[in-house]
Amino acid sequence: MKISARNTLKSTVKQVILGAVNAEVILELAPGVEVTAIITKESAESLGLAEGTSAYAVIKSSDVMVAID
Amino acid sequence: MKISARNTLKSTVKQVILGAVNAEVILELAPGVEVTAIITKESAESLGLAEGTSAYAVIKSSDVMVAID
Amino acid sequence: MKISARNTLKSTVKQVILGAVNAEVILELAPGVEVTAIITKESAESLGLAEGTSAYAVIKSSDVMVAID
Amino acid sequence: MKISARNTLKSTVKQVILGAVNAEVILELAPGVEVTAIITKESAESLGLAEGTSAYAVIKSSDVMVAID
Amino acid sequence: MKISARNTLKSTVKQVILGAVNAEVILELAPGVEVTAIITKESAESLGLAEGTSAYAVIKSSDVMVAID
Amino acid sequence: MKISARNTLKSTVKQVILGAVNAEVILELAPGVEVTAIITKESAESLGLAEGTSAYAVIKSSDVMVAID
Repeated sequence: MKISARNTLKSTVKQVILGAVNAEVILELAPGVEVTAIITKESAESLGLAEGTSAYAVIKSSDVMVAID
Repeated sequence: MKISARNTLKSTVKQVILGAVNAEVILELAPGVEVTAIITKESAESLGLAEGTSAYAVIKSSDVMVAID
Repeated sequence: MKISARNTLKSTVKQVILGAVNAEVILELAPGVEVTAIITKESAESLGLAEGTSAYAVIKSSDVMVAID
Repeated sequence: MKISARNTLKSTVKQVILGAVNAEVILELAPGVEVTAIITKESAESLGLAEGTSAYAVIKSSDVMVAID
Repeated sequence: MKISARNTLKSTVKQVILGAVNAEVILELAPGVEVTAIITKESAESLGLAEGTSAYAVIKSSDVMVAID
Repeated sequence: MKISARNTLKSTVKQVILGAVNAEVILELAPGVEVTAIITKESAESLGLAEGTSAYAVIKSSDVMVAID
């Protein structure tokens, strides 16, 4: 599947924390560069996410804000 | 300012493409790891974004999806 | 690719309207049931979307609101 | 009320699953075409959603992504 | 129509700036408290928005971030 | 920090309701004008939000919909 979201970043799952409904998934994009995703627990299980899994962080460009100090 | 969005990733502006209303901002998170943001042209100008500017990519964790091959 | 977004709905592209930066894509989910997507023109072209193309509408469940009369 | 979101799709509530804070609402847009919404439990109760209720799935066009195989 | 979005704030349209595709709508929630919406030009016209129109700003609670100084 | 989101509204925290994972934060923008945010419990605690705290509601303009009666 190929998707219209502009950002599809290769990553490795560093941690999956399962809640009652949602799961918090920490993805490592590069050494020391991590992004946290909150997805449904059902999706996390259906995708078979676990520490070490190769995955992509998929983010629409309009969902990325920019800030400066 | 400190914000509730979980992901505040240090980056360097690699390119700013100004359109009529929006601006496309390419941020480098690490060598070879880039994320594209679409923000308003007004915001890009107000933040003074230009190639080489230090900036943050700010992304809510619920806006990060996870995919696998 | 398999993604964490809960809604991946089979559809047929009914119309693609290209703007300067964005594209409006009308997807038919079932006879008479249409959903409109706004994606970047670049994505529309990269995916090769045109009238009649088989495609999926991908929507996060937290982006679906519910209303009643 | 008339809203700026482009997609207001007639549907029938197929299932409501109440969690502690959120509710998962499955809406049938056409026979075999379902979309899942996650809204707050409070909203689900306030709207009186239950199996068989007529409702609308309301989705902004910029929240619809497009994918191909 | 009654919607699941938690925030439906009474307001008055202060300004509508029509672009080629989108419209920027400035809504006054209270004296001196304004919120800017970007919607499609088509929606702005279909809703008949103009300076002085009574309207609502509709915002999902998960789209509201919180920041401190 | 200065951010690209167009709406950064001064407010006072009126109530914080902590759930297992998320927190519901009610912000008062002006007397009688309130907006509800759902953020992670971790963020609410990290920002030190409590009744009476000065805070900002930060909302992207593309996340504001407009409705009329």
